[in-house]
Amino acid sequence: MLTDDLLARFAAIVGAPHALTDPADQQPYLVEWRDKYRGRTPLVLRPGAVEEVAAILKLAHETGTPVVPQGGNTGLVGGQIPHETGAEILVSLKRLDRVRAVDPENDTMDVEAGVTLQRAQEAAEAAGRLFPLSLASEGSCTIGGNISTNAGGTAVIAYGNTRDLVLGLEVVLADGRIWHGMRHLRKDNTGYDLKNLFIGAEGTLGVVTAAVVKLFARPRSVVTAFVGVPDPAAALALLHRARAAGGGTVTSFELLPRRAVEFVTRHDPASRDPLAEPHAWYVLVEISSTAAGGGTEALEAVLADALEQGIVEDAAIAASQAQAQSFWRLREMLSEVQRHEGGSIKHDISVPVRLVPLFLEKALPVIEGLVPGCRPLPFGHLGDGNLHLNVSQPVGMDKAAYMARGEEMNAAVHAIVTELGGSISAEHGIGRAKRALLPGVKDPVELSLMRAIKATLDPQGILNPGKVL
Amino acid sequence: MLTDDLLARFAAIVGAPHALTDPADQQPYLVEWRDKYRGRTPLVLRPGAVEEVAAILKLAHETGTPVVPQGGNTGLVGGQIPHETGAEILVSLKRLDRVRAVDPENDTMDVEAGVTLQRAQEAAEAAGRLFPLSLASEGSCTIGGNISTNAGGTAVIAYGNTRDLVLGLEVVLADGRIWHGMRHLRKDNTGYDLKNLFIGAEGTLGVVTAAVVKLFARPRSVVTAFVGVPDPAAALALLHRARAAGGGTVTSFELLPRRAVEFVTRHDPASRDPLAEPHAWYVLVEISSTAAGGGTEALEAVLADALEQGIVEDAAIAASQAQAQSFWRLREMLSEVQRHEGGSIKHDISVPVRLVPLFLEKALPVIEGLVPGCRPLPFGHLGDGNLHLNVSQPVGMDKAAYMARGEEMNAAVHAIVTELGGSISAEHGIGRAKRALLPGVKDPVELSLMRAIKATLDPQGILNPGKVL
Repeated sequence: MLTDDLLARFAAIVGAPHALTDPADQQPYLVEWRDKYRGRTPLVLRPGAVEEVAAILKLAHETGTPVVPQGGNTGLVGGQIPHETGAEILVSLKRLDRVRAVDPENDTMDVEAGVTLQRAQEAAEAAGRLFPLSLASEGSCTIGGNISTNAGGTAVIAYGNTRDLVLGLEVVLADGRIWHGMRHLRKDNTGYDLKNLFIGAEGTLGVVTAAVVKLFARPRSVVTAFVGVPDPAAALALLHRARAAGGGTVTSFELLPRRAVEFVTRHDPASRDPLAEPHAWYVLVEISSTAAGGGTEALEAVLADALEQGIVEDAAIAASQAQAQSFWRLREMLSEVQRHEGGSIKHDISVPVRLVPLFLEKALPVIEGLVPGCRPLPFGHLGDGNLHLNVSQPVGMDKAAYMARGEEMNAAVHAIVTELGGSISAEHGIGRAKRALLPGVKDPVELSLMRAIKATLDPQGILNPGKVL
Repeated sequence: MLTDDLLARFAAIVGAPHALTDPADQQPYLVEWRDKYRGRTPLVLRPGAVEEVAAILKLAHETGTPVVPQGGNTGLVGGQIPHETGAEILVSLKRLDRVRAVDPENDTMDVEAGVTLQRAQEAAEAAGRLFPLSLASEGSCTIGGNISTNAGGTAVIAYGNTRDLVLGLEVVLADGRIWHGMRHLRKDNTGYDLKNLFIGAEGTLGVVTAAVVKLFARPRSVVTAFVGVPDPAAALALLHRARAAGGGTVTSFELLPRRAVEFVTRHDPASRDPLAEPHAWYVLVEISSTAAGGGTEALEAVLADALEQGIVEDAAIAASQAQAQSFWRLREMLSEVQRHEGGSIKHDISVPVRLVPLFLEKALPVIEGLVPGCRPLPFGHLGDGNLHLNVSQPVGMDKAAYMARGEEMNAAVHAIVTELGGSISAEHGIGRAKRALLPGVKDPVELSLMRAIKATLDPQGILNPGKVL
């Protein structure tokens, strides 16, 4: 029970200015940015140091108080929003915002959980290095949130998911103890890999307060092309050729349907179709090289060859950084412009990369059969087998009536995903949104292992309860 | 208690021909290859399918029978050898030796635990792809052992440790249940990362029976150079330059002291010093490129520049594959030739890459002070901050008297490693050899987390007891 006395004890840990009780002050922490989840809490705590987080968890442990950790509040599955009951305390990590160290010689950076992704990228750049994680929300999402959700983004094809970018962690456990796991090592085989348990656990096993992340060489040249292809299979063939081409690394490979270009050019005055004729599908490909101009020659050769063989119908290679940005804008505006097209039922799925065309072949007719006239928009990270299959409502249909079909459509899509050995949440996580779906897609042995680990690390169930499991 | 009746029940699971009780038949499973550990067991079981492994663990669970899983028996820390008590059953995974699938389009391969690393490499090559894990023992070590020990090797600098190469696992749990985690996905955020718990757990949390591993493009060109440098700091400077050079990827970067070249050329008639004059230190560098001839130009430029600035004293670039192999032979024969130089006290340490020169500066005088006349041989994977600091005995000293100083020397070296934030087991694991050292180097919070996870996944403690923890 959150008595006034107990709330006062929590507030005393961080000091009154950082213990928010006024609804207006709390508002930014309690509404998910798309307004899909709204939570309630008697207390938003903004600790300023790991010791304060530890003290909060210690008191929570002693009193059985449930705690919801939060980073930049940009999550898409409601994992960062407390329930409507008002029985949980929210702990915002945003004041833990120091870049503790940047070590270009060791290619590592120590960052606290509340550092925004963009600030982390900038800190690496200032030291002449690259922190490659890149997402649409990088201006406001935080490293702690990226780690807790194992964020993906547009550079996974070359650098991996957030999990692959973390060497060490500092974590406050459910009982308030601090695990000091800030290692800077490329190799360490002294026992179990605890770090990966906390990465992607959405704050249900511990509260990540800092991390050691990997840095990389900055590419000397980045070349971007916008390519028209007849179908997803052709896009996949182009991916294989681009990866096999010498001279550069494929650092992004995004698939877009024609409808994406139509939606963006319709609603974003700054965007234009880079190609003269319409094409059924498009690929946004980026090749990077540590050699100056290294990727351009390779990409030109790949595209010329693919054009000749009908894999590619047309292509534009960005001649300037501004042009490259205009190509990227077509991809980045996609989530935003969909709002202007009415309700959108969303999926964040992955399948083995080579099965993406088969997945689309199976899923699109099922979706279109369920709600005739609906407008599927399958786009995303083809190189990772990860598609955001958003489906806009039929023109003129009642939005609420359309959105009421969401669960049914999700179930149909997820059935196909599961049949193909895929994932129903490739990069956004489970949170509240997909919690009920887990038992349907997970091996019961795996679920029971997850539950056993949760019970071991958080025996009272006070860490972000009702999320994931 | 391993009664005759119980042993018969275990034997019946795999059939008499695969239940070894004769000491001569058991011998290859019970002696570690350097004869450092010898174990006893009433029964060596050689299951031929995951269901048989599951049945063995189910019976072990019901009867509280301890089980030691074993792969190729090439481990260096005794993790694969039963204790001398004879109270444990040994389960060899070598008959689970099918390459279940190779999928070059998805860049994945499904391999069972008993497949040797070399066969896995060959299966990938036959499909035109690369499985990059590479170790001295690759002819006999198995994928299951590689995974259970999170093996490192000579290509970690470019491709990561074994952990980084695994997408999915099949694991038999302590109670005989099978976790079917054979995923082929590049992205999957549906719950806790269980896979990484079993990787590197040395068979103490479950028995790995199969894995989905990542494949890569085969480089079109690989260029190898043998480089003389004045000191480890110069080697590190060369590493930074080689990584920053365009046109290729540094796929190996091995440090050798002068003594290594002397030992190998003294005892291996096939080996010669590739350089005209002696140098205090050497680097074996390999640069790979997806472009034909891509790395050579880059490497030549880097070396020419480094020569001019005194970072490099002399260098030989291999003009043929045979010459490249002769460079590699100097590195690969190192473990073997040390035997001819008497007793060797070994360390497998890592520190942050940039601290390697400082580590050597601190550790070498301490070692030489402890046993005057001893001959340190610090070699290994500089690019990963991982050195095998083996120390050969003084010429003429009694071997047993020298080896008796092992613990003392280990303690002195490990104290320096710990002071520098390093690891006392960078790639070989803990097993029996370093089990007693863990409490001295691990944060008590981390140790208690490890123990809690062990108790959760193996509550009876029947999986490889007395190893790691």
